[in-house]
Amino acid sequence: MRILGIDPGLRTLGWGVIESNGSRLSHVANGHCTSDGDDLGERLLSLHNQVTEIIEAYAPDQAAIEQTFVNKDGAGTLKLGQARGVALLTLAKAGLPVGEYAPNRVKKTVVGVGHAEKEQVLHMVKLQLPGCEPKGPDAADALAIAICHAYYGGTQQRQLKEKRA
Amino acid sequence: MRILGIDPGLRTLGWGVIESNGSRLSHVANGHCTSDGDDLGERLLSLHNQVTEIIEAYAPDQAAIEQTFVNKDGAGTLKLGQARGVALLTLAKAGLPVGEYAPNRVKKTVVGVGHAEKEQVLHMVKLQLPGCEPKGPDAADALAIAICHAYYGGTQQRQLKEKRA
Repeated sequence: MRILGIDPGLRTLGWGVIESNGSRLSHVANGHCTSDGDDLGERLLSLHNQVTEIIEAYAPDQAAIEQTFVNKDGAGTLKLGQARGVALLTLAKAGLPVGEYAPNRVKKTVVGVGHAEKEQVLHMVKLQLPGCEPKGPDAADALAIAICHAYYGGTQQRQLKEKRA
Repeated sequence: MRILGIDPGLRTLGWGVIESNGSRLSHVANGHCTSDGDDLGERLLSLHNQVTEIIEAYAPDQAAIEQTFVNKDGAGTLKLGQARGVALLTLAKAGLPVGEYAPNRVKKTVVGVGHAEKEQVLHMVKLQLPGCEPKGPDAADALAIAICHAYYGGTQQRQLKEKRA
């Protein structure tokens, strides 16, 4: 099964694709999409187009995205929400089932503890995906999200659907 | 000039189309898109498809959207942000220039004061668009946003670009 992990963000959106065969994981590709400029609609469209190209290029079977951390910075939450909405729409448009994972769960799965530093996540991602060189911290996070989905995929989605029903 | 106004929301997204000829305004159509269910991606895709159909049906020249009110409810801000991001993406995908207006400015333009009740907005929208019967409060808000854009369109967009540059 091929999994696309997404770490959503308006300025930088990290992505990573892995292959999961039973308990064996391997790296396919990773990178980040960027959007800049003064027109929010154009930036969101640019992110949408870039993620669409990634899906077309790597043909994942499933996707996973980080659950956004809601904090006291309302303006930041709004920006992130807009980027996350566009990422979710793009995945749904491609017909991909999507798992959502809290940042703590991703870290706990990949590193073993819920409050790991970025360097630790990077280290463990490289260890679990031999030969992988993440192109920056957002790409490493996206790969970690994909790894998390490889472990929890089926159950997580059922739980989410049950919780929301 | 034909203007599409959007009042963004995840559960209910209001829309209204008006025609502006100099200082003369007329009503074209209004309504609301709804999304429901347990899959956020599917809901956002449904909103995207509905707004795309409205654009195809009424062929607006420009669009206007409410600036989201960021409050202390982080989860609510995130939901609204995701819906707003999808609305902005859909407008950008259709190549429409988009004006953004704060709720207070919309009310001040349509009613004359910044803190008007919903009933007052509805009353003034009906007065300024003879024969118009808004299909609910979200549709009335969307029409008010379109009216606001008819008055401020050009300058507002220039100001936004200058501010963001």
